[in-house]
Amino acid sequence: MLISHGMSTLFPHLNPTNSCVSVLSAVLRRQQFLIRSLGGTPDQSRVAKMNALEADAINIIRSITPTLDLSRHKGQAAMSLGSMLGDSHILAATLTGKIAVVGGCREYTGAPYFAAISALKIGADLSHVFCTKDAAPVIKSYSPELIVHPVLEESYSVKDEDKEFTANKVLSEVKKWMERFDCLVIGPGLGRDPFLLDCVSEILKHARQLNVPLVIDGDGLFLVTNTLDLVSGYPLAVLTPNVNEYKRLVQKVLKCDVNDEESSAELLSLAKGIGGVTVMKKGKSDLISDGHAVCSVSIFGSPRRCGGQGDILSGRQVIYDIVAVFLCWARQYLFLVEGDQEIWEMSPTLTGCAAGSALLRKAASIAFKNKKRSTLTSDIIECLGKSLEDICPT
Amino acid sequence: MLISHGMSTLFPHLNPTNSCVSVLSAVLRRQQFLIRSLGGTPDQSRVAKMNALEADAINIIRSITPTLDLSRHKGQAAMSLGSMLGDSHILAATLTGKIAVVGGCREYTGAPYFAAISALKIGADLSHVFCTKDAAPVIKSYSPELIVHPVLEESYSVKDEDKEFTANKVLSEVKKWMERFDCLVIGPGLGRDPFLLDCVSEILKHARQLNVPLVIDGDGLFLVTNTLDLVSGYPLAVLTPNVNEYKRLVQKVLKCDVNDEESSAELLSLAKGIGGVTVMKKGKSDLISDGHAVCSVSIFGSPRRCGGQGDILSGRQVIYDIVAVFLCWARQYLFLVEGDQEIWEMSPTLTGCAAGSALLRKAASIAFKNKKRSTLTSDIIECLGKSLEDICPT
Repeated sequence: MLISHGMSTLFPHLNPTNSCVSVLSAVLRRQQFLIRSLGGTPDQSRVAKMNALEADAINIIRSITPTLDLSRHKGQAAMSLGSMLGDSHILAATLTGKIAVVGGCREYTGAPYFAAISALKIGADLSHVFCTKDAAPVIKSYSPELIVHPVLEESYSVKDEDKEFTANKVLSEVKKWMERFDCLVIGPGLGRDPFLLDCVSEILKHARQLNVPLVIDGDGLFLVTNTLDLVSGYPLAVLTPNVNEYKRLVQKVLKCDVNDEESSAELLSLAKGIGGVTVMKKGKSDLISDGHAVCSVSIFGSPRRCGGQGDILSGRQVIYDIVAVFLCWARQYLFLVEGDQEIWEMSPTLTGCAAGSALLRKAASIAFKNKKRSTLTSDIIECLGKSLEDICPT
Repeated sequence: MLISHGMSTLFPHLNPTNSCVSVLSAVLRRQQFLIRSLGGTPDQSRVAKMNALEADAINIIRSITPTLDLSRHKGQAAMSLGSMLGDSHILAATLTGKIAVVGGCREYTGAPYFAAISALKIGADLSHVFCTKDAAPVIKSYSPELIVHPVLEESYSVKDEDKEFTANKVLSEVKKWMERFDCLVIGPGLGRDPFLLDCVSEILKHARQLNVPLVIDGDGLFLVTNTLDLVSGYPLAVLTPNVNEYKRLVQKVLKCDVNDEESSAELLSLAKGIGGVTVMKKGKSDLISDGHAVCSVSIFGSPRRCGGQGDILSGRQVIYDIVAVFLCWARQYLFLVEGDQEIWEMSPTLTGCAAGSALLRKAASIAFKNKKRSTLTSDIIECLGKSLEDICPT
């Protein structure tokens, strides 16, 4: 894993396009050793004093982001990593990622829009939204770039006797598309209608059967906190709770209250307790654990310090989909590396979260410099492209 | 109260972050003395010759606007005043404000949008809109930043026999959210449908029971002018009438016609006559009274003099929510100061109105410089952030 102590990277000379594999592998072994030396199982009493290592998020982003090769002509925009490992146009086509957001109901339309458009802004191929019929025209009106499916239903529009039929219909509408997606984001603006959440549970189970990675937030977290089995033991699930959602998760899983003095150990226990899902806890530093390792991202912190708004809202709404995109990229990158050398054990979810966290922090920091108190989520989204370009120039 | 004579401030060296309390208190006592020397009760015959003192709006804005402290880390984005008085993270989280607009019907969707987005543009955390089902998709489509609840109903969509049930449902939908709001703005684009206004009366009563501050304008003023009891005696209510609405209020409360020669005394009597609500009368100078004191805001006056449009329309639609935000900030600021020193008696409604008036005038002035005759409300809103940044650099 790419880890640095504080802000000083361990690998200042890392060249992600040709030599990172062995270096990364060495660091991963060191991180695994740290965890093993703490007893393997993250028993809270033994790991209480553990400090999360700072992820070298910039190099992670540079490693996993597909590098567009401008010398090629259109239709051959392959990434250099792909080239290095035996380029293929199929890879080039899939490496940019196809993301779907399941969210958006009568009340909430902003959150799924922000999530879906963010993916496109950092280079995803396609961004779909599955929402209720009421939400669809509104989300469509925000941007012609999105593909919006008005397929979800809320209780108020379905008679009791029609519920089974409707639920099957909703699932089959989503199933038609599922295999095309590299990642599903479940929760932004989903609402808490019981019938709708039942349908989403079925969508989630189906995605899991197909090994589609899941990023779960907002009302999706409400759903999985109540029914942990939906994600428990699924290593491709990422939960991105806010303060209150994290509190509920800790109470449900660890049967205790949040202890801020032992954040790293607690998060490790939590992720382990849900069977090795990845949990990303946003705060002064973002803390991320997949139950095996825990790392922090503190870089580019300013706007989160400055704007309650940029912090509480924007951070939440943008993070889902950029984590989803980086998760896809990390999986594809790690698949290539592993296929080549079989020495890679790094979790793509941890990698994706660290990259997503750092990029969002950088974008929010730039937006805040420009707009100060009046920074809105839209302003942060507008800065995503520039932020990624600064880190990985095309 | 921060008051200056004309444009020359009494407190040129006021440092709002560490020394304003005793100075403000001294000025407040002076203002109270002035009012007492006029007889305590604003008897129109005795106060006829009274001139409103110019509020030192710039220093008011500097005092009450939460100062974002960049040296702190995220989650501790406390305002410097908070720090001064014994900082608390809870304060930091609430100080930016959560605002809700009750307005927006089949005919009018622009006014509630302008009101709600203005709050976000000066740094409020969240801005909700409660409107009719017809208005919701349109208001949502203006901006994904707003949370829009399609809960209000108009007569044409409700059968007589369903009215009681529907009214209860509307109220319970709004009640679910009420405790989260720091201020409610009632009226922009509300329309005058009798059934809808009945429901809004109930919402207003409920907000009052919970001590939620209210800013009332547009058709909300039509409602309360007809039923003064809804706001009478509620010190957290602010009315922001235009010329015609002011005329009707004066006729209803003071039983006479408007007398422009005695504006200050008349406004004081009016505010007192409605039991100490705050009334903001917009004009060449904005005049504000809470029934105890009266002050004016004349600063940044150009666009109101120059552009009829910028004055009559834009002024109205933007002012609601920025007054609401400043009212929240003033309350929180005054709560801190009072809690600490117990010497503060300044009305948060008067403070919020003076701050909102000055900021709007500044934004309108900048917008008018750029756009001249073609200045629209949206242009003024775009200048709110810069205007606040000029006054309170982050």
